[in-house]
Amino acid sequence: MPRDTDRRDPRARLLAAFATVRTETERRAAPLSDEEQVIQSMADASPIKWHRAHTTWFFEQFILAGHAPGYRPFDDRFSFLFNSYYVAAGPRHERPKRGLITRPSVAEVGDYRAFVDAAMTGLIADADDTLLETLQPLIEIGLNHEQQHQELMLTDILHALSHNPLLPAYDATWRMPGKRRVSGMSEVTEMPEGIQRIGHGGTGFAYDNEGPAHRVLLPQTRIGSGLVTNADWMAFMEAGGYQDPMLWLSEGWAAVEAGGWDAPLYWRLKDGVWHSFGLGGLSIVEPEAPVCHVSYYEADAFARFAGRSLPTEQAFEVAAGQQLMDDAFGIVWQWTRSAYGAYPGYRAEPGALGEYNGKFMVNQMVLRGSSLATPDGHTRPTYRNFFHPHQRWQFSGVRLADETA
Amino acid sequence: MPRDTDRRDPRARLLAAFATVRTETERRAAPLSDEEQVIQSMADASPIKWHRAHTTWFFEQFILAGHAPGYRPFDDRFSFLFNSYYVAAGPRHERPKRGLITRPSVAEVGDYRAFVDAAMTGLIADADDTLLETLQPLIEIGLNHEQQHQELMLTDILHALSHNPLLPAYDATWRMPGKRRVSGMSEVTEMPEGIQRIGHGGTGFAYDNEGPAHRVLLPQTRIGSGLVTNADWMAFMEAGGYQDPMLWLSEGWAAVEAGGWDAPLYWRLKDGVWHSFGLGGLSIVEPEAPVCHVSYYEADAFARFAGRSLPTEQAFEVAAGQQLMDDAFGIVWQWTRSAYGAYPGYRAEPGALGEYNGKFMVNQMVLRGSSLATPDGHTRPTYRNFFHPHQRWQFSGVRLADETA
Amino acid sequence: MPRDTDRRDPRARLLAAFATVRTETERRAAPLSDEEQVIQSMADASPIKWHRAHTTWFFEQFILAGHAPGYRPFDDRFSFLFNSYYVAAGPRHERPKRGLITRPSVAEVGDYRAFVDAAMTGLIADADDTLLETLQPLIEIGLNHEQQHQELMLTDILHALSHNPLLPAYDATWRMPGKRRVSGMSEVTEMPEGIQRIGHGGTGFAYDNEGPAHRVLLPQTRIGSGLVTNADWMAFMEAGGYQDPMLWLSEGWAAVEAGGWDAPLYWRLKDGVWHSFGLGGLSIVEPEAPVCHVSYYEADAFARFAGRSLPTEQAFEVAAGQQLMDDAFGIVWQWTRSAYGAYPGYRAEPGALGEYNGKFMVNQMVLRGSSLATPDGHTRPTYRNFFHPHQRWQFSGVRLADETA
Amino acid sequence: MPRDTDRRDPRARLLAAFATVRTETERRAAPLSDEEQVIQSMADASPIKWHRAHTTWFFEQFILAGHAPGYRPFDDRFSFLFNSYYVAAGPRHERPKRGLITRPSVAEVGDYRAFVDAAMTGLIADADDTLLETLQPLIEIGLNHEQQHQELMLTDILHALSHNPLLPAYDATWRMPGKRRVSGMSEVTEMPEGIQRIGHGGTGFAYDNEGPAHRVLLPQTRIGSGLVTNADWMAFMEAGGYQDPMLWLSEGWAAVEAGGWDAPLYWRLKDGVWHSFGLGGLSIVEPEAPVCHVSYYEADAFARFAGRSLPTEQAFEVAAGQQLMDDAFGIVWQWTRSAYGAYPGYRAEPGALGEYNGKFMVNQMVLRGSSLATPDGHTRPTYRNFFHPHQRWQFSGVRLADETA
Repeated sequence: MPRDTDRRDPRARLLAAFATVRTETERRAAPLSDEEQVIQSMADASPIKWHRAHTTWFFEQFILAGHAPGYRPFDDRFSFLFNSYYVAAGPRHERPKRGLITRPSVAEVGDYRAFVDAAMTGLIADADDTLLETLQPLIEIGLNHEQQHQELMLTDILHALSHNPLLPAYDATWRMPGKRRVSGMSEVTEMPEGIQRIGHGGTGFAYDNEGPAHRVLLPQTRIGSGLVTNADWMAFMEAGGYQDPMLWLSEGWAAVEAGGWDAPLYWRLKDGVWHSFGLGGLSIVEPEAPVCHVSYYEADAFARFAGRSLPTEQAFEVAAGQQLMDDAFGIVWQWTRSAYGAYPGYRAEPGALGEYNGKFMVNQMVLRGSSLATPDGHTRPTYRNFFHPHQRWQFSGVRLADETA
Repeated sequence: MPRDTDRRDPRARLLAAFATVRTETERRAAPLSDEEQVIQSMADASPIKWHRAHTTWFFEQFILAGHAPGYRPFDDRFSFLFNSYYVAAGPRHERPKRGLITRPSVAEVGDYRAFVDAAMTGLIADADDTLLETLQPLIEIGLNHEQQHQELMLTDILHALSHNPLLPAYDATWRMPGKRRVSGMSEVTEMPEGIQRIGHGGTGFAYDNEGPAHRVLLPQTRIGSGLVTNADWMAFMEAGGYQDPMLWLSEGWAAVEAGGWDAPLYWRLKDGVWHSFGLGGLSIVEPEAPVCHVSYYEADAFARFAGRSLPTEQAFEVAAGQQLMDDAFGIVWQWTRSAYGAYPGYRAEPGALGEYNGKFMVNQMVLRGSSLATPDGHTRPTYRNFFHPHQRWQFSGVRLADETA
Repeated sequence: MPRDTDRRDPRARLLAAFATVRTETERRAAPLSDEEQVIQSMADASPIKWHRAHTTWFFEQFILAGHAPGYRPFDDRFSFLFNSYYVAAGPRHERPKRGLITRPSVAEVGDYRAFVDAAMTGLIADADDTLLETLQPLIEIGLNHEQQHQELMLTDILHALSHNPLLPAYDATWRMPGKRRVSGMSEVTEMPEGIQRIGHGGTGFAYDNEGPAHRVLLPQTRIGSGLVTNADWMAFMEAGGYQDPMLWLSEGWAAVEAGGWDAPLYWRLKDGVWHSFGLGGLSIVEPEAPVCHVSYYEADAFARFAGRSLPTEQAFEVAAGQQLMDDAFGIVWQWTRSAYGAYPGYRAEPGALGEYNGKFMVNQMVLRGSSLATPDGHTRPTYRNFFHPHQRWQFSGVRLADETA
Repeated sequence: MPRDTDRRDPRARLLAAFATVRTETERRAAPLSDEEQVIQSMADASPIKWHRAHTTWFFEQFILAGHAPGYRPFDDRFSFLFNSYYVAAGPRHERPKRGLITRPSVAEVGDYRAFVDAAMTGLIADADDTLLETLQPLIEIGLNHEQQHQELMLTDILHALSHNPLLPAYDATWRMPGKRRVSGMSEVTEMPEGIQRIGHGGTGFAYDNEGPAHRVLLPQTRIGSGLVTNADWMAFMEAGGYQDPMLWLSEGWAAVEAGGWDAPLYWRLKDGVWHSFGLGGLSIVEPEAPVCHVSYYEADAFARFAGRSLPTEQAFEVAAGQQLMDDAFGIVWQWTRSAYGAYPGYRAEPGALGEYNGKFMVNQMVLRGSSLATPDGHTRPTYRNFFHPHQRWQFSGVRLADETA
């Protein structure tokens, strides 16, 4: 993403950022066949082809339609097909039926991307300064939006492939990113009680839900230096963690029973040895690697088992700003014990883009950090990711904490 | 299929039949892209690629594995993937998840078919007379099985394509087969009470559920010469047929309400004109064409509305044998008022092939005749097709009848 | 029920029949507290109080409203509450919510019954011959209707009580009716092929679905003299009957798996001994008693296990007419392998009473005979009871048979 | 509840408190017949008889069993029947089946209450000081627990009665409590930013989830003086509030569509006039009365429509402590925008009583204040009530607020 220290012409910067992000999407889709790009394994996930088209539609809908004189949509019917949830942008195709859209084909979606890329590139290159000022924030949100979908492309295809009994690899050469100092629960740092500034108040890009910046009184908090590891998790399993309702939230226990959970998602016991299915295929669980693909319910039960809590999102943000944690970013998202809600004084923007974040502010928990699937440049300490407490197909892990009232 | 009048060497006849049927499957898949071959639009339907692989597995499982010395399966894992419901043949992949099998790819399934075709061809060509006698009934069931799936390929892809808002055609040049004497309810033929022979007792191929041949006392029956047409159906709709619970079976009315039914499946009102979606795409409903894609519930309600009944399967079979009906075959299957059950003295064969028909003998209604999607040579008066009364994605239509006790 | 040999004045006969039936309903409700009369344990069952009120509404709706001059309904709101499924008689309260109707109270329903009894008694006593001729068939259907509900009162309260962990008895003194010659599968009688008359054609009361009487060609059939016993059933269980999918219809096996079936309904293993819960409470399963509370799926699987079939309803009716069976009536209903459908030439009567039987003619199986819960005078060889193949809260058992094509 | 200013002997105080609370439960049950005490209208609600027995079991399980020498349970089987969700206290009867427990009867439950009352009274009266110190906190939680169920008795019976088409009144003389200064959104009070103490730190009784007391930085907040009224709500309805997805959380809109919501629960349009069903029966909606029986989703949508927010639970608690609001207590609970979670440093107590609050800390929203159904003495500013955002059968209303970051 463009940085303020970049001294190039703002058009050149925008064009470079645009090209970088758009190319990364294609790079992630490249290992996949047409068949693999069309399927959808659950309503929560979307087909790869849909991600590629939807992110393209976003530019067409929110930028080209209003700002490129004489722009004609690539295909009038795509708005219906590739709108995700923007009520203000018109009716949409049913989400759980996305996997039935064989046409436009993968090749036609490629053409669609090229068509919109050309139009966007022309629009940026030819924009006068006034137009550029209007375009810049819209393009930034479009690119950040596409980066979010880049992460989902990997989580969604992994979920889909996991339903194939043959367990095909997304990329057989893929490896879990190098562990730096994954130390589990052995080391903690303490932050004293004090007033802290939370939220995004700077000049770079941020989503509306990261603001307004505001002050909070952080209680005295100890936070784990490292992530909870697979070895830690196996200890939890061996101690009967998945069999003891006293460790679980009531709805968490219901999820355990309904889903028959006895290990993280994608773990399979094969000849008595725990394996996990990942982007590289099936492999033996590495004890020192951070645990991944656990739900909030599991993270919470584990914390209770360990006699700790999960951090609040504020504690995480402060600790991240002070660099008190190892592996805060780039490996697994970390569940916080904060429900996803509005910051004080938050108001959603008017219009369709106001639907981006605000309308999901209930029944979800905040995750902080970022994961191996998060694209470069899409990470910052104020970033608020959010999912439902039962969901575990994201690259989600656990860091522990403790507070003193 | 081989006919008894064929004077060629039985090996040559079998090879020709094998080639004909296997080629027809590929011909039906040919218009479809890889993406279109992988998707599954409901649990009742299967992907095209799955049909192609499953019918191939059938030969591998029930013939090559036991009769081709030294035969090694193309891929050991395919048995799990492509077994449909044969409990005796081992565990199976979950039916509703068939649409998530991106690998083996369409191309690999093509290779699988070629591999099995070569093995089967060699086996037949080299068989001595004793082996041939063993093989012949197995191959016949394998080819008839594949022909059934050929019909399902068309019904299933039509259902899948109907979920794409773009309504793409399977084959834009496709046309409803030429109407011969579709005369709706205007003409009837009468059969007097009498003892009739029902079921298959001849020498050609038939499924086990078509026998034992047996005698029944057919009551005096009038049967419609023609099929119920779209014009007839529109009259039913205009008379409020879909709004009057008194015309419906209790469970039929529940289906109307739950599904919001107000017309046959695939009918859509566009600019005030009824269109229907078919293999050739969306087109205006033709009044003189036979109504298609109606459920048993709808057929029964229509018959009540018309002051008639549906024929019993025995009446249909007798009338077909006496050629009393137009369009009995090759256009639409015709719902009978007979529940699908065993003929007197029926026993399922032992082993996996005994699961073919017998275990479905409850909660389904018999359809007789055949449809535009039925492959050549797969039609006979004793043939018993069966579906649940709410299902309407088959090429199913209506013929009326009347009985006197 | 009135018999033709009764030489009393037809008014006196009707009054006596009316009093007998109405009193029997109250006798069956008498052991139950107000609390026990209001609850509903599943959508298939109804509260005792509802049965008492609904049977009363039937007389009000179909007789008093049209034939008793100046009759005013006891309460205008009861028609909505106590109509079961007669679309033609107006809107109804939702079936699964019947258990929430605390008012009218049990006492008020008692008043309602007394009010309608008085009106009916007056109407009958004062009717002239013309009116009497009109009334007689209506009253007969009203009384037969009430007798059907008397059976349901016992099956429904048993189901409700079975959900109480305390397993309270409906009547602690209740005993399974005396076994006469329950001989399981050890003895059979053979009926030769031949044309037989089926259905009700006499002068006494029968439901419309028992006609028209018609001729059928019965195939050669052997039918078991006795009922299948609990000892027979235990042998099936011990042989793994509930664990072997090859014995089951496909939908039957799905029911076994979904419901966790491993024994008849109401059987419970207690300290290693099979007990069954019945109207008298929990007691040890008696080996010689007929098995009860099994579904069609179970009956069919058992027959396959035994190498036999279930009888057709026609075979049962002929055998009953010739008195070839022990315990055909009065102990358990016997599943036949006949799907419930219309006899040749059947037409439902117009109007609300035409909804009585015809609209259920799909997806159900016929049971023949009668049970311990069937009231006196409600039994005849042509009687067709019908339930869905998964249902097992009725007093339903098994008799075996065999046919030769 | 006992107050610290009470100078009586602590035994006398406890006995008086015990008698008061136990009597209030009976007073609330008194208008209801046996039939009305047994029914259960949804899984979220429980039968009146169950509330009466469960609150009694609580004393038996957590006090008498451990502290009354020689105490024998009234009935050993009641623990299974009347345990609600205390995993640590043993297995329980299925929650949705509570409405099928006809025995023990209402009268027997009355006996059970009397039996436990006698034992508890004896235990308290005879307790020495050491025992008294142990008993006091347990009795307090038992009485507070029973008071919570007293509120639920009214919400649950109202829900059950609402399913009776006759809409019977719980108590025909019941009236909505006198409005004091219900002023809707017309007047607000402002609280400046500042550090505030939140949570219970005093000596009286409080639930564990009200602590630990801790300091927070409250942002500058304006809070409405009055409650949102029915007139305000009708303005929302007339402006199309229930038809505009832009006003709703995404899951809220799904609830609107799934439930067909177009007004608060229990509102019914009758002859063009909005009525509401309450404890006194059906009556015309009073414009000046506070709106009641709305979900969090509705409260949130209304706030968005009004250009405001809901208060945080902290803002409410501070405003309540400073008496800045009218009608904060005793009319309707007020939804806050705070998700229900743990206060910093919260740890659930070990053992069964630790299950009281902590295991519900996800997916629910906090309500503050109290309602017309809240018993006397069960109200305090730190009290945290919590329900799922879709639930609306509680006496739940709306107060608006605003924050400045």
